[in-house]
Amino acid sequence: MSERVDRTFLNPGLVSLIGAGPGHPDLLTIRAHRALQKADVVLYDALLGEGFHALFPKGALAIPAGKRCGGLGATQAEIHELLLEHAWAGRRVARLKGGDPLIFGRGGEEAAFLEAAGIPFELIPGVSALQGAASAAGIPLTHRGVSREIRILEGHHLLEAGTDWPELARSKATLAVYMGTRSLKAVARKLLEHGASSDLPIALVECASWPGQRTTISTLRLAAEGHLCPLTDGPGLVLIGAAVSARVHPLQPSSFVTLSHEPSSAFPRSEGEAGAAGGGRERRAG
Amino acid sequence: MSERVDRTFLNPGLVSLIGAGPGHPDLLTIRAHRALQKADVVLYDALLGEGFHALFPKGALAIPAGKRCGGLGATQAEIHELLLEHAWAGRRVARLKGGDPLIFGRGGEEAAFLEAAGIPFELIPGVSALQGAASAAGIPLTHRGVSREIRILEGHHLLEAGTDWPELARSKATLAVYMGTRSLKAVARKLLEHGASSDLPIALVECASWPGQRTTISTLRLAAEGHLCPLTDGPGLVLIGAAVSARVHPLQPSSFVTLSHEPSSAFPRSEGEAGAAGGGRERRAG
Repeated sequence: MSERVDRTFLNPGLVSLIGAGPGHPDLLTIRAHRALQKADVVLYDALLGEGFHALFPKGALAIPAGKRCGGLGATQAEIHELLLEHAWAGRRVARLKGGDPLIFGRGGEEAAFLEAAGIPFELIPGVSALQGAASAAGIPLTHRGVSREIRILEGHHLLEAGTDWPELARSKATLAVYMGTRSLKAVARKLLEHGASSDLPIALVECASWPGQRTTISTLRLAAEGHLCPLTDGPGLVLIGAAVSARVHPLQPSSFVTLSHEPSSAFPRSEGEAGAAGGGRERRAG
Repeated sequence: MSERVDRTFLNPGLVSLIGAGPGHPDLLTIRAHRALQKADVVLYDALLGEGFHALFPKGALAIPAGKRCGGLGATQAEIHELLLEHAWAGRRVARLKGGDPLIFGRGGEEAAFLEAAGIPFELIPGVSALQGAASAAGIPLTHRGVSREIRILEGHHLLEAGTDWPELARSKATLAVYMGTRSLKAVARKLLEHGASSDLPIALVECASWPGQRTTISTLRLAAEGHLCPLTDGPGLVLIGAAVSARVHPLQPSSFVTLSHEPSSAFPRSEGEAGAAGGGRERRAG
């Protein structure tokens, strides 16, 4: 293009609110990948793995955003400011968010902000932590004769808000607790106190689809007693319910690092997910 | 390769249980797309759109499967037989299922069958109807101060099983009813009878991400009175809860056909989702 191209834009650019999926870059959708390729600016969740950077277009401005990133874009208001600034300069902005933008991702808030500001945006759905963890761990979320409902919950909120624990303890649903690692013990204890079965299976799936992915299977009683512990610093999803017992053992992508793990206590047994050679079966705790 | 390559396989092939996403082929993940490219046999849900066929590798055997396809693979037992036959012949089989394989997809059953038969398999998660519908309709599934829980339910099962309706009617969660079109009126009536607010917003999202995608917004009362009707024969997801009111209006992919629709009754107002030129805002029913 000529140097004389007018760079004064009269119209705002387009913001793509993109679900990046559960962690591994190849769990991006084709549509998400295409939108990313067209971006002038990539505003990405600081928690996304390194692998995503290779997908950013050369020359695009890449800005980490989110609570852990420290710098600009650390607060939701700052993220809104950045979206506004770049969109009003006529740029195509890819806002890359972990999981799906409309599940615990504040995508709804960002979209509402853009709409109010008159900036066009598109929503590109993503594989959420729910599906990422289920496929990684081989746990069916629904299963005929076992579970016909999934409840997507948030660990912190469950403990803070007026949760109807007796009702939750009675539920036959598969409970999927997002950001579930820290609240795990307290949630298990509450469910037990309100009548859930002590041998109800519970799975902690960490770093689903990332290298270092771990699945630990235990029971509600053992979890309530503090024996189900995180093995990583990565994101964890907790699955509770009878469907956890229907677990299968899929092959894992060959790019995965196989980690060995010797638990310090006999409970719970844990496994490092197997590499391409296929899965060793772990014993169930309890 | 030479003609003398031994084609007698001693080992079974690999089955990839793949989530195809909510409908549009570009909502496949990159991993799913890659697995599909390597397949010798594609056993695909008969309900998947035509667009997927272009992604099947040339020369691969493509077999439709599922209740509506009529021929081979119409029952779950026949699908298992087909998986077995081709895997034991050493072929790579892509089992392509709508949405995510572990959410209402019987992926757990197929995986358990393969495991019992000693056939290696991998699980590739997909964008589920939940995320597909939410992004298509611009409805946040969780929203700060509004909803911090999502309940994934199935229309038919809700009405058949011993659903705790008072509890469901009290819930602050976003209810997502899969295969929700036929049961819509009865579910709305049950929720109303058990104390849910008559002006609770409800959305029917049809053919999410497909050409011809439609979103209709109404209230629980109008839905219970039969005024929220499907406009297509395609799959429908029903979203119920306060978060529906936080709806935004994203641009739609340019490949979408814009349909105009003049509802025969004043209620509910419906919209054909807009084309690339951007979304007109519809008025809310009620």
